[in-house]
Amino acid sequence: MVNYGRIYDLIIVSAGPAGITAAIYAARKRMEFLLITVNIGGQVTYSSEIENYTGFQYITGEELTAKFYEHLKQYNFDLRIEDVKQVEPYGGIFNVKTEYANYLGKTVIVATGRRPRELNVPGEREFKNRGVTYCATCDAPLFKDVDVSVVGGGNSGLEAVLQLMKIAGKIYLIEIMSQLKADPILIEKAMASNKVEILTNTKVLEIIGDKTVRGIKVQKGGETFSLPVRGVFVEIGSMPNSEIVDFVEKNQWGEIIVNCACETSFPGLFAAGDVTNVPEKQIIIAAGEGCKATLSAFRYLSRKNLSI
Amino acid sequence: MVNYGRIYDLIIVSAGPAGITAAIYAARKRMEFLLITVNIGGQVTYSSEIENYTGFQYITGEELTAKFYEHLKQYNFDLRIEDVKQVEPYGGIFNVKTEYANYLGKTVIVATGRRPRELNVPGEREFKNRGVTYCATCDAPLFKDVDVSVVGGGNSGLEAVLQLMKIAGKIYLIEIMSQLKADPILIEKAMASNKVEILTNTKVLEIIGDKTVRGIKVQKGGETFSLPVRGVFVEIGSMPNSEIVDFVEKNQWGEIIVNCACETSFPGLFAAGDVTNVPEKQIIIAAGEGCKATLSAFRYLSRKNLSI
Repeated sequence: MVNYGRIYDLIIVSAGPAGITAAIYAARKRMEFLLITVNIGGQVTYSSEIENYTGFQYITGEELTAKFYEHLKQYNFDLRIEDVKQVEPYGGIFNVKTEYANYLGKTVIVATGRRPRELNVPGEREFKNRGVTYCATCDAPLFKDVDVSVVGGGNSGLEAVLQLMKIAGKIYLIEIMSQLKADPILIEKAMASNKVEILTNTKVLEIIGDKTVRGIKVQKGGETFSLPVRGVFVEIGSMPNSEIVDFVEKNQWGEIIVNCACETSFPGLFAAGDVTNVPEKQIIIAAGEGCKATLSAFRYLSRKNLSI
Repeated sequence: MVNYGRIYDLIIVSAGPAGITAAIYAARKRMEFLLITVNIGGQVTYSSEIENYTGFQYITGEELTAKFYEHLKQYNFDLRIEDVKQVEPYGGIFNVKTEYANYLGKTVIVATGRRPRELNVPGEREFKNRGVTYCATCDAPLFKDVDVSVVGGGNSGLEAVLQLMKIAGKIYLIEIMSQLKADPILIEKAMASNKVEILTNTKVLEIIGDKTVRGIKVQKGGETFSLPVRGVFVEIGSMPNSEIVDFVEKNQWGEIIVNCACETSFPGLFAAGDVTNVPEKQIIIAAGEGCKATLSAFRYLSRKNLSI
């Protein structure tokens, strides 16, 4: 499957807000670049409503993704819908491996974003998409009038509860710590509903079921018991998709460390957006960082005299 | 004129892409903030066409400004159309002075952007807006069929020439160095026109006229001569509007030095966008930086326990 053909100026990995903006700038700089991604839009696609991307008062994640894609597709460039498995240094340039092929680039921008954190309990993998879900926006409508549980008492957990309040039956909100960490206004709204039961100091032990989820086994105090739910919404944070590079510095959370110009510890390898240690994870920030990353890659190529 | 009334959580100075995004995030965080600006949109307003703000394939500066303002004005907050003259530390908080009043804030975001660099030659100030201009997009249409000169051989100078080629008579492009620094594609287009005369190694000595500009006196080699023009487009770069703060670190170009979280050398004082040392001056970057600045200000207030 080794197919070293052309060498790109730049390979951009993933097409969320950072990768798409990186690609728009690369196209306008007339760089020869390849965009490899499994989807267009990244996590944006799963946002039900976005009100903080400057210029759009209110837009759904799907609509903003469509706007991004419309913007991007007016340019001519190579696009591969493939899953990048690894990026590695390769004699002064980089080899980007997907499940199908290898691609060579003088520079690479890793813009792979984040994914939901898993509970790591028995039954979780087995019942994934059969009752276990990590995206309330996507899946809440599937749980009409049935009982569900939401795991995680931060903002995303409470937002899942608020969405489910209009759809599901009883909602158990499970938090391992002694109190919820979400914004007070969200907690108040959840507590005002008689559909919602909040269980703090409660640990998830197992997800149980037959073909689909039938319950969630938890421990609270010394007691172990099962809640009869048909859905488990896991909302316990997210992790950077940074495993594809193992030769750059990362922080304790696995985020790729970049400076303000999106340079990593390895020359020629840039990273942008939620996969990095940028202090806030926001669409408008990721877009700005994607722009910086391409302009930094462009400067790197000019300085190194790697003809562009 | 001292009117210390309420103390704001945050005062945002100027409403370009950075300031507007900072304001949107501050509103959504329910911070009590004041936006002080002389205009809405900043330099964006003067852009004829924008094709690199992710989500908008093609939009004029005026249209994008309108979108930004529409987004911003849905929130309730204090807005003053005033000119900030100085920001100064004031007993642990900040005093922001305008031509009319003083305002107090626990934190300040300076998002004042940049302004065109001046030639600093006799006649320039005198004939400003009477033939001397710093914005080809704004003013090129005023010079129909008359001869003009453009000073500056970088991208912005060449872009001014290209705009003027469709409107003006003869166009003298004046560059002080031995060659033009603009992208080759722009230079080729300008050279293809018989309207354009390029003078390199040429220094501007004076702008002359009566009520309006009548000519520009230049020196090339040992020779001094005048070009009979009715317009002088000055396109020699830009300068940060950073004079209003004199207690923070700046770089050699006067840009306010910030870290990746938009923190300046002075705690509680943040800066975002083109006024800072952020390596690239782009709308999408400035917007992302404005977001970061507000989130950093919010964190600063939480940490300091300055109630918000």
